[in-house]
Amino acid sequence: MRTAILLAAIALSGCATAQTQPLASAAPQTAPTPAVPMGQQWLYGSAEGAIASQQTFGALTGYALAKARARPADSVIIDEAASGFVPCADKPLAVVFDADETLIWNIGPMRWFAMRGTEFDPKIWDQWEQTGVGKAVAMPGSIAAMAALRAAGITPIANTNRSSANAKGSEQTLAAAGLGDFKHGETLFLMGDDAGGSSKDMRRATIASRWCVIAMAGDQLGDFRNAFNTPEAPPLARKALATAAPYANLWGNGWFLFANPVYGPSIRGGFDDIFPPETHWEPQP
Amino acid sequence: MRTAILLAAIALSGCATAQTQPLASAAPQTAPTPAVPMGQQWLYGSAEGAIASQQTFGALTGYALAKARARPADSVIIDEAASGFVPCADKPLAVVFDADETLIWNIGPMRWFAMRGTEFDPKIWDQWEQTGVGKAVAMPGSIAAMAALRAAGITPIANTNRSSANAKGSEQTLAAAGLGDFKHGETLFLMGDDAGGSSKDMRRATIASRWCVIAMAGDQLGDFRNAFNTPEAPPLARKALATAAPYANLWGNGWFLFANPVYGPSIRGGFDDIFPPETHWEPQP
Repeated sequence: MRTAILLAAIALSGCATAQTQPLASAAPQTAPTPAVPMGQQWLYGSAEGAIASQQTFGALTGYALAKARARPADSVIIDEAASGFVPCADKPLAVVFDADETLIWNIGPMRWFAMRGTEFDPKIWDQWEQTGVGKAVAMPGSIAAMAALRAAGITPIANTNRSSANAKGSEQTLAAAGLGDFKHGETLFLMGDDAGGSSKDMRRATIASRWCVIAMAGDQLGDFRNAFNTPEAPPLARKALATAAPYANLWGNGWFLFANPVYGPSIRGGFDDIFPPETHWEPQP
Repeated sequence: MRTAILLAAIALSGCATAQTQPLASAAPQTAPTPAVPMGQQWLYGSAEGAIASQQTFGALTGYALAKARARPADSVIIDEAASGFVPCADKPLAVVFDADETLIWNIGPMRWFAMRGTEFDPKIWDQWEQTGVGKAVAMPGSIAAMAALRAAGITPIANTNRSSANAKGSEQTLAAAGLGDFKHGETLFLMGDDAGGSSKDMRRATIASRWCVIAMAGDQLGDFRNAFNTPEAPPLARKALATAAPYANLWGNGWFLFANPVYGPSIRGGFDDIFPPETHWEPQP
């Protein structure tokens, strides 16, 4: 009994969304409202979360406009076969964005999950893709960035793991947020468009065959290269992989990451995974 | 009894550090190890947290080096009396950094607090300032940024709310992390150096009277202007204050914010504070 209540309360705390079970089974009917997960407080609620988003859009826009002036030879999209970058040739300029927590904040379902202390629920998310139009909000700095890129002749493209079955909902959600036109198959690429499943590599290759991609942006490592997307790897190994040469120099320099402490494989690990022994410290009594 | 266990477990979850009491009173002796708070998993453990830090150091360094080449007329430090910026005159170039979660990650005491599910404890933190030498780690990108700034004739200065009573410990902690020399009273400014208490404004004015400050960096709004540091204000009002004109344009453009979803006034608020009514959404049964 005590264990059940402990589990329920830990779920209720809304914190360990990556580690706990849905609440329903264990929740007492008199359960108090859970706390807002600290990641959501910071990202969605705080000045700091808004500023971090605006800062990254500003850095990306400045970088892309400078690149457009001196047209680069290569995209920032890796050609896994050639183990180099896809050449630009005379393709039109584009910047590739993930959508969720990169262009828009999905505060509708995130609030819903947190209030119930439940895990991410794909069935509810599928409804959100279809009915979230007007409820997803443009991230701070995103609308100005889209306008600046388009004014410079750079086309924003979204490559997201939203479902191709819900293409209309996602097109309308991005437009209603004020981000302009993203058209499925042209400037919007979705899971189900090809055989790659949740890997975005094949979609990136398709985009790079049509566009000179001068910058990429996302909140998850899979938004840049699927080989980085190793949720099963220990956090410190995963960190080493994505920050090693030759990729280290790309972060902030062609590849732009948005802070997302709300969900994803970045939110994993126990004390021994996160804190190497050499950093352990204890106060004296 | 159930309530006590609920409170204990919510504290144990290590999540609601901003909202819960210390665990001691309610913890069962058989308490399981708490979960690592999601903010610590993301910031200290994930590739994404490391990349976000490296990206911000890269943007700051690029900005500062460009400014140094075309020496600016004004510092980026606000002169509250003149309601403008402090002039640079012929003062030497500097960049002002906060220390904690801006130059170094304090994973020693953060792990300690999280494992016990306790709030920030000033007595334990005071020990950390004195004995954390060699345990605080340089944030990703910080060592390269310090080297690049110094090579360009720009002096890094730290303005932190660590105590002036622990000046030696903080000087040694920064040096041991690989960040180079920060000397109390010259390039290291601490709480207790003046009558300003935890407000950094007076210290900023002192620094700006001696240096041409071409960039500022921190993880909390008080690292930029104390008037922004209103932990009592509702999150959305606090956000509006710090992101309004004329400050909006400074973020990423003279003022650089580091993501810190681990602690501070940015981690506050209940559901009604974080999620405006117009964004509420519910799935259909």
